[in-house]
Amino acid sequence: MPRYRLTIEYDGGPFVGWQRQDNGPSVQQALEQAIARFCGETVAVHGAGRTDAGVHALGQVAHVDLGGDHAPETVRNAVNFHLRPAPVAVLDAAVVPSDFHARFSAIGREYLYRILNRAAPAVLERGRVWQVAAPLDVAAMAAAAAVLVGRHDFTSFRSVMCQAESALKTLDALTVERSGDEVRIEARARSFLHNQVRIIAGTLKRVGEGRWSLADVEAALAARNRDRAGPTAPPEGLTLVAVRYPPSP
Amino acid sequence: MPRYRLTIEYDGGPFVGWQRQDNGPSVQQALEQAIARFCGETVAVHGAGRTDAGVHALGQVAHVDLGGDHAPETVRNAVNFHLRPAPVAVLDAAVVPSDFHARFSAIGREYLYRILNRAAPAVLERGRVWQVAAPLDVAAMAAAAAVLVGRHDFTSFRSVMCQAESALKTLDALTVERSGDEVRIEARARSFLHNQVRIIAGTLKRVGEGRWSLADVEAALAARNRDRAGPTAPPEGLTLVAVRYPPSP
Repeated sequence: MPRYRLTIEYDGGPFVGWQRQDNGPSVQQALEQAIARFCGETVAVHGAGRTDAGVHALGQVAHVDLGGDHAPETVRNAVNFHLRPAPVAVLDAAVVPSDFHARFSAIGREYLYRILNRAAPAVLERGRVWQVAAPLDVAAMAAAAAVLVGRHDFTSFRSVMCQAESALKTLDALTVERSGDEVRIEARARSFLHNQVRIIAGTLKRVGEGRWSLADVEAALAARNRDRAGPTAPPEGLTLVAVRYPPSP
Repeated sequence: MPRYRLTIEYDGGPFVGWQRQDNGPSVQQALEQAIARFCGETVAVHGAGRTDAGVHALGQVAHVDLGGDHAPETVRNAVNFHLRPAPVAVLDAAVVPSDFHARFSAIGREYLYRILNRAAPAVLERGRVWQVAAPLDVAAMAAAAAVLVGRHDFTSFRSVMCQAESALKTLDALTVERSGDEVRIEARARSFLHNQVRIIAGTLKRVGEGRWSLADVEAALAARNRDRAGPTAPPEGLTLVAVRYPPSP
């Protein structure tokens, strides 16, 4: 049974999240159903990470074992055919060694949080961005972001529901840049805590509005208390951009 | 009665086009209704140009005369409030001289046609792009585009329904560039014929696929016959990016 690595794009809007749940359609379920329609197999699709309801992906990665001996392009095209009309698509399929694991082999994740910083509501980017009317000070946001880079106890920046054993994480990069009306927050780490990027975005927005100083962010981090960081930014602004793996030997 | 210039973004998907029509909701009607709700006036909103059903705008321009003496920001915010949930927003409102006319004062229009050039269907950009699976030769498309730049009789590149008296137009710029998976065709002219950009996009796609040569495009232009150019590309790939006016005196 060859193992396939799938690179997946989805619009998180209509889903309860990546992971299969009882309360609505998940991306994982959409993929498993499309594979069942394609080759009649009931399979488990293993994702690199769970994304929450409403969170998008440009490059989620999953693996799945399939019988038969399908060419990767056949898997990609057939699964895409059977996914319709769900807003999920397999961008790439590749055969990988049987010890490849989408989650445990991953060595890095990259997220993008998009803020549409203008008075008018989002239209063409509706459901893809967080619209914030007050002009944001991007330089102040970038300076505050630098406080969070590195190895820290991120208890203040994770959901109280987070199930990770430790809140100690290394944030490899956190940048804030303006591109026209848009403020783009990019975050890279080996792995993230539940809601970590959204809480960071909600906190940096407070800094951008001038309501919080850099010292407030330092104090929030040091407090190790979720109540001390900013609010959790809405899911629709967040996209899982890419998952990285070691180069093949 | 001050005249306001409105800069407008919309998702063309749910509309029959810019212009008011009997067969469904138009962007013009959505704006006129929102203005009526805001200030109780029945007004005509004059756009710089009609966009077809499904065509988007990042920077359509319109003018409207309103009684009262509303600050431009008030007009923008109130109209946006009353537009909800229609995917239309006023990005900017400004008071302009009473001889400003959105259509007749315009000296330039800029359109963008987006092709998503990959095997997988569009997901996050669904409804915003034309998905083309075959790899496109962008250099060949750019060379063919150069044939169309300048002053020509564009009879081959306009809808047979086009009502313009003359098909003689000057295409100021037509560029084709790749950005990742996306092939972006940008067109600038004082004004365009009906379906001109979409027929250009459909023709250049044939060139990109290797089915048509540069000489075929030259022959299509010279033929002055709509049947000799390529097909009309789908509306969802097209966006009216900007309308230009002379600098204020």
